[in-house]
Amino acid sequence: MSSNRGVAYKGPGEVEVVDLDYPTFELKDGPGVNPANVGRQLPHAAILKVVTTNICGSDQHMVRGRTTAPEGLILGHEITGEVVEVGPGVEFIQKGDLCSVPFNISCGRCVNCKTGRTEICLNVNPDRPGSAYGYVDMGGWVGGQAEYVLVPYADWNLLRFPDKDQALEKILDLTMLSDIFPTGYHGAVTSGVGPGKSVYIAGAGPVGLAAAVGAQLLGAAVVIVADMVAERLEAARAFGCETVDVSESDPREEIAKILGREEVDCGVDAVGFEAKGHGHDAKEAPATVLNSLMDITKAGGALGIPGLYVTGDPGGVDAAAQEGSLSLRLGLGWAKAHSFTTGQCPVMRYHRELMEAILHDRVQIAKAVNATAISLDDAPRGYAEFDSGVAKKFVIDPHGMTGLVAA
Amino acid sequence: MSSNRGVAYKGPGEVEVVDLDYPTFELKDGPGVNPANVGRQLPHAAILKVVTTNICGSDQHMVRGRTTAPEGLILGHEITGEVVEVGPGVEFIQKGDLCSVPFNISCGRCVNCKTGRTEICLNVNPDRPGSAYGYVDMGGWVGGQAEYVLVPYADWNLLRFPDKDQALEKILDLTMLSDIFPTGYHGAVTSGVGPGKSVYIAGAGPVGLAAAVGAQLLGAAVVIVADMVAERLEAARAFGCETVDVSESDPREEIAKILGREEVDCGVDAVGFEAKGHGHDAKEAPATVLNSLMDITKAGGALGIPGLYVTGDPGGVDAAAQEGSLSLRLGLGWAKAHSFTTGQCPVMRYHRELMEAILHDRVQIAKAVNATAISLDDAPRGYAEFDSGVAKKFVIDPHGMTGLVAA
Amino acid sequence: MSSNRGVAYKGPGEVEVVDLDYPTFELKDGPGVNPANVGRQLPHAAILKVVTTNICGSDQHMVRGRTTAPEGLILGHEITGEVVEVGPGVEFIQKGDLCSVPFNISCGRCVNCKTGRTEICLNVNPDRPGSAYGYVDMGGWVGGQAEYVLVPYADWNLLRFPDKDQALEKILDLTMLSDIFPTGYHGAVTSGVGPGKSVYIAGAGPVGLAAAVGAQLLGAAVVIVADMVAERLEAARAFGCETVDVSESDPREEIAKILGREEVDCGVDAVGFEAKGHGHDAKEAPATVLNSLMDITKAGGALGIPGLYVTGDPGGVDAAAQEGSLSLRLGLGWAKAHSFTTGQCPVMRYHRELMEAILHDRVQIAKAVNATAISLDDAPRGYAEFDSGVAKKFVIDPHGMTGLVAA
Amino acid sequence: MSSNRGVAYKGPGEVEVVDLDYPTFELKDGPGVNPANVGRQLPHAAILKVVTTNICGSDQHMVRGRTTAPEGLILGHEITGEVVEVGPGVEFIQKGDLCSVPFNISCGRCVNCKTGRTEICLNVNPDRPGSAYGYVDMGGWVGGQAEYVLVPYADWNLLRFPDKDQALEKILDLTMLSDIFPTGYHGAVTSGVGPGKSVYIAGAGPVGLAAAVGAQLLGAAVVIVADMVAERLEAARAFGCETVDVSESDPREEIAKILGREEVDCGVDAVGFEAKGHGHDAKEAPATVLNSLMDITKAGGALGIPGLYVTGDPGGVDAAAQEGSLSLRLGLGWAKAHSFTTGQCPVMRYHRELMEAILHDRVQIAKAVNATAISLDDAPRGYAEFDSGVAKKFVIDPHGMTGLVAA
Repeated sequence: MSSNRGVAYKGPGEVEVVDLDYPTFELKDGPGVNPANVGRQLPHAAILKVVTTNICGSDQHMVRGRTTAPEGLILGHEITGEVVEVGPGVEFIQKGDLCSVPFNISCGRCVNCKTGRTEICLNVNPDRPGSAYGYVDMGGWVGGQAEYVLVPYADWNLLRFPDKDQALEKILDLTMLSDIFPTGYHGAVTSGVGPGKSVYIAGAGPVGLAAAVGAQLLGAAVVIVADMVAERLEAARAFGCETVDVSESDPREEIAKILGREEVDCGVDAVGFEAKGHGHDAKEAPATVLNSLMDITKAGGALGIPGLYVTGDPGGVDAAAQEGSLSLRLGLGWAKAHSFTTGQCPVMRYHRELMEAILHDRVQIAKAVNATAISLDDAPRGYAEFDSGVAKKFVIDPHGMTGLVAA
Repeated sequence: MSSNRGVAYKGPGEVEVVDLDYPTFELKDGPGVNPANVGRQLPHAAILKVVTTNICGSDQHMVRGRTTAPEGLILGHEITGEVVEVGPGVEFIQKGDLCSVPFNISCGRCVNCKTGRTEICLNVNPDRPGSAYGYVDMGGWVGGQAEYVLVPYADWNLLRFPDKDQALEKILDLTMLSDIFPTGYHGAVTSGVGPGKSVYIAGAGPVGLAAAVGAQLLGAAVVIVADMVAERLEAARAFGCETVDVSESDPREEIAKILGREEVDCGVDAVGFEAKGHGHDAKEAPATVLNSLMDITKAGGALGIPGLYVTGDPGGVDAAAQEGSLSLRLGLGWAKAHSFTTGQCPVMRYHRELMEAILHDRVQIAKAVNATAISLDDAPRGYAEFDSGVAKKFVIDPHGMTGLVAA
Repeated sequence: MSSNRGVAYKGPGEVEVVDLDYPTFELKDGPGVNPANVGRQLPHAAILKVVTTNICGSDQHMVRGRTTAPEGLILGHEITGEVVEVGPGVEFIQKGDLCSVPFNISCGRCVNCKTGRTEICLNVNPDRPGSAYGYVDMGGWVGGQAEYVLVPYADWNLLRFPDKDQALEKILDLTMLSDIFPTGYHGAVTSGVGPGKSVYIAGAGPVGLAAAVGAQLLGAAVVIVADMVAERLEAARAFGCETVDVSESDPREEIAKILGREEVDCGVDAVGFEAKGHGHDAKEAPATVLNSLMDITKAGGALGIPGLYVTGDPGGVDAAAQEGSLSLRLGLGWAKAHSFTTGQCPVMRYHRELMEAILHDRVQIAKAVNATAISLDDAPRGYAEFDSGVAKKFVIDPHGMTGLVAA
Repeated sequence: MSSNRGVAYKGPGEVEVVDLDYPTFELKDGPGVNPANVGRQLPHAAILKVVTTNICGSDQHMVRGRTTAPEGLILGHEITGEVVEVGPGVEFIQKGDLCSVPFNISCGRCVNCKTGRTEICLNVNPDRPGSAYGYVDMGGWVGGQAEYVLVPYADWNLLRFPDKDQALEKILDLTMLSDIFPTGYHGAVTSGVGPGKSVYIAGAGPVGLAAAVGAQLLGAAVVIVADMVAERLEAARAFGCETVDVSESDPREEIAKILGREEVDCGVDAVGFEAKGHGHDAKEAPATVLNSLMDITKAGGALGIPGLYVTGDPGGVDAAAQEGSLSLRLGLGWAKAHSFTTGQCPVMRYHRELMEAILHDRVQIAKAVNATAISLDDAPRGYAEFDSGVAKKFVIDPHGMTGLVAA
């Protein structure tokens, strides 16, 4: 049990499965570890045998070389696992528990955690509020695309599944609780989705599709998903969404055909800073999604913005983009009295209720995002395929515990 | 009683008191009246003898020539008056009632009004949701800087003061209920102000000072007001605010001196699109206030944005500003999980509770904004003085009913 | 068009279809009309040709003689109709519109209406806040179980269906928007139902079943419905609810079997003051439902109480019941930090979003409550059958417009 | 430092200062300790040198013999202290920190704590959700009316004052953060108090007065406090409240004199189950406060109920009272669409914002409740005086650290 292997970032466009240390109850130095975190004692942590760990669109930002991620960084922040060891400060979580890990690491002791704002925990990242596993500038917590991973503040962070056998049967759904299902759902919630509402979701990647599933669970009357990739739009239609192909059509016109009016009640940005303009051969245009959403969301509506915007983007199209500035048509938003919610999803706010929805068969999130299990050794292939825009959500199963891949 | 006089916009930098028609229960053609509104029957309206009507910062946008306001437009959307006649469709408001008029005109019948979103009423302005008296592109409702004014949907719009004599005694406070007190308060509310919070209010004009008074009423522990005009900052200090002179100092440093930490809980933009940069000789820089607020508001905080941003500004500093686009550092806001609320204040949501606060001596808004009564004939002087940045809020008293000016 | 017929209360256990006056734009004297309302002018009203009008459980309270309803009172507060005439004060509603009528009559001008509290409108009932059509002590507005009915404040009260043909196709669903669907949904909302929650609904009459449908729309993971009538429980199971037969079983034990724990997240009282105890041969025991809900709802849970409790009940089991007093185990509720929401549902808060859910096929409320169309002449039979506890919701179709009954 | 002394319950009407064990990081057996808690390891705890610890009205319930509290129980749940030792699982709280202790003990790991419901923590009391120091049936945590006390889950529970010297200067105010200030404030918040509202607070004991201070901080326009003790009413008037002496006057009539109308917006029950009827020689009548509040609170209003109601009261006036049942006029509440919030105050939800309000001189809670420092040896006298209805809040200072009493 003392060996470990995981997925490392090796440079732009390249990841590799490497050997790494088996976790201990101390945060050791390594690629991307903030010096202030080196040597941090973690008696409150648990070591998990990773059952599933998903590849995320935000991992791609690093792998594409759009960040300052150091070579050797172990990736992975979407983690579900079985507890194999707990530190002396762990009281309620027990060895053998099968748990979902929120991608935001949080301490459960600071003022933000106490008010449910776990996405901006003050005690885990010396650089700024908020943290995540296996991510650049997030404190240096080792990523979970690995056989074993350490989860700090285990009593606080871990969501234990009530029945282990039942959980393993639904593992491809439950694995989405660590990030994309709550993240998409947060977009829907903060855009004001509720019973009877119409919502336009920009982006049909996994987060966009999760937002669509979330909007349905919240009672939306009409869910419209927009993208430029036909295969992704087909995925959205497969579970009852309306779709708009923004490489071909004007959103306002398409909305009018669907709803009989040109504006929706709610708008979700599930794209983020790597947005492209509308139409054929669209170029990167970071403000285009938000400006479009202000155009097509009704007066008084809200925009939920789970799509990632960054403080610095070395690969940005211009100087403004490189420092995270966007040319937003705020005058339009102001005239329509729009409100806007940004930031990481505080996963803990939602993961329990979404778990209940999964366990009682109220949602089929795995099917919606086309969850596809692969082995740890296949992770590099998964990264490459996902980057090509394929309509799949890759779920790494390092130990073959899902029964869907060879160990 | 069949004569009327009011303040007309005559061209950039110029207003004049002119004769105009006494109101009737029909919306007649005139400068700025939307053709679709011409001839509209108004049996639900009341005619008010104007007791007080204030000059607003947003009137200045028109008078400075920053809009397409037509010559001859009768100005004025901050109105308090005595009902002198009601239409046949008015049931509850009666002749003799002394009332505050919300600057947003609303119908009380559409879906937005039914949910309290009177700032985006669907039935009063053929151009877009939302309307106001005496304002460009707002449907053409005649302004109230006049002796008499017509208020449509009187049973819905008017807030009757419970005791007329008491109301006249506090008229300089109550006159602020039509716009700036609710508007500033809305900024405070939407920025998350509540008991124990710290708030930074950009702008010490009347709306900023009203936001400060509102923040105190909401229980804020520390209210910090920023401006470049010493006299305005002095006004803020006079009722217990901390201040930052952004022509001299860096906001983060000043906040640190006041709070012992560099960030506030809540941020209010009481400036809007005519913002200037920090420091001496600052030039117009429309995004500077919002970018500064993202910098100094803590992670998880909210920004209330009562300051006006427009969809088109012919006098904007560049092409982007001219179409209402701002270069916002949204990447920073996203990293801090900020949320943003824009738009006109829905006055009706707040005016009753603020009236109670005034009537029971919980707030002294008139003193805070230095309410200064002037006669109707003095209105042009009031406009000129206000434009110079003087720390006064001018209240026109067309009939000498306040006892503070000659009729 | 000048004739009219409607259902009159004739004494305990007896209703009759009688001739009555065709509506005019004045509230005339008649059985149950408050003297202060006699002669009230209603230029803001519309006259509706009734398309559907449902028999409600609360009508039964009157017909059973449990109230002081006067002989001759025209019954009916669940109304859907086509506008055939509008008063001179109506501006937006037009002849030909097909509309749902909220059972709470409200003015759209008072402080309560302005804040969405239409269930306690201050201007329609001289006795107390709040009103309804065809109901004892509610001001004397003529009931709608008739061929034609007058709706005051038509621009405010009426919900217009966007497409008349589509609406007629779904009329058995849309007819539930006037009362029971929003009422049951209000119970679910105020009990805290949302995605992933478990809810226990006491009572499987139409309101209880509507609460169950509403809870599903709100995303509940598990909906448990309790009653003593097997046929009603069968109706609940037919659309995916769990059930508890409280004439046979203990609720805690049954909940434990369903959930694996003895308490639910949310509790709804869809029974009200005519509650009976648990077990065979249960007697009327007005506090039993609420005490049971405090027992089985988890600490921190909320109770939604759409079931009617009255200020006076001449037929109450004892002196306390006769004045509307209940022996509640509040000490238990306090120890569990429960909260409680009572009162009429403000229909207008919900009917639009529920209409959208119906029109987009997100809910099948008619099927859930077994909507059963009958002619006006069959109303007395409908009352008798409904009183027997049959699992049907009777929908009177006075003109044969649904195509489901002969005119 | 290894000695300790504290206040013990010795039987009805009797308390005594006794020697007791110095705290250790284990919960040892003793009077009132739940067997399931005996031997519980507490590495997450801190030992506090008690700076101040207040006598609470709910302590009096035990001392009057109205509960099953065992002889020898160490009392005290209102605790402020200096950290003198931390367990190995404490990471952020440090020796020397001066802290407020929420009276509700909570774990910071369970689902209720994660959602801010610390008053019903699932992991600290084997009997039921929720716990407190020094209280019957609350798990057996040793009370804090002592020289030293142990606080479990110290990183979660403790509120650290930012500046120790400043805190000691305001210690009589800050000591109210452990219970009565948040508890009264919670009553105000849950009754709907906000800017411009009128509120009626039943009971002018410390919690009632704290509710009044809280209502003022929340912006209430009119705060009315009712009691039967002239001295307590005088205390309320001293900081700007209106008062009603319910031993002499009818609340509706008095409200009408104050407000010009007979009903208030918001109602707070700061009395609880030992309520007495109105008028001279009133007898214990547990439902009287709640029934009165339903009478005088306007339709649509809310009742906040911080006053304690219990599941069993051996000294209750009748069988119903002895099991915590009250004859409530729910029919009246339902007709007025009232809502009700019960339960312990979750102190952690409010203590930080109230601390900021104290530190920035926005409230004078100590003066309002007449905080009176006494030595530990004087505690028995404090209990006796407080029970007599004197308008004082006794603050025990075991080490003379306030400078107000001899050590």
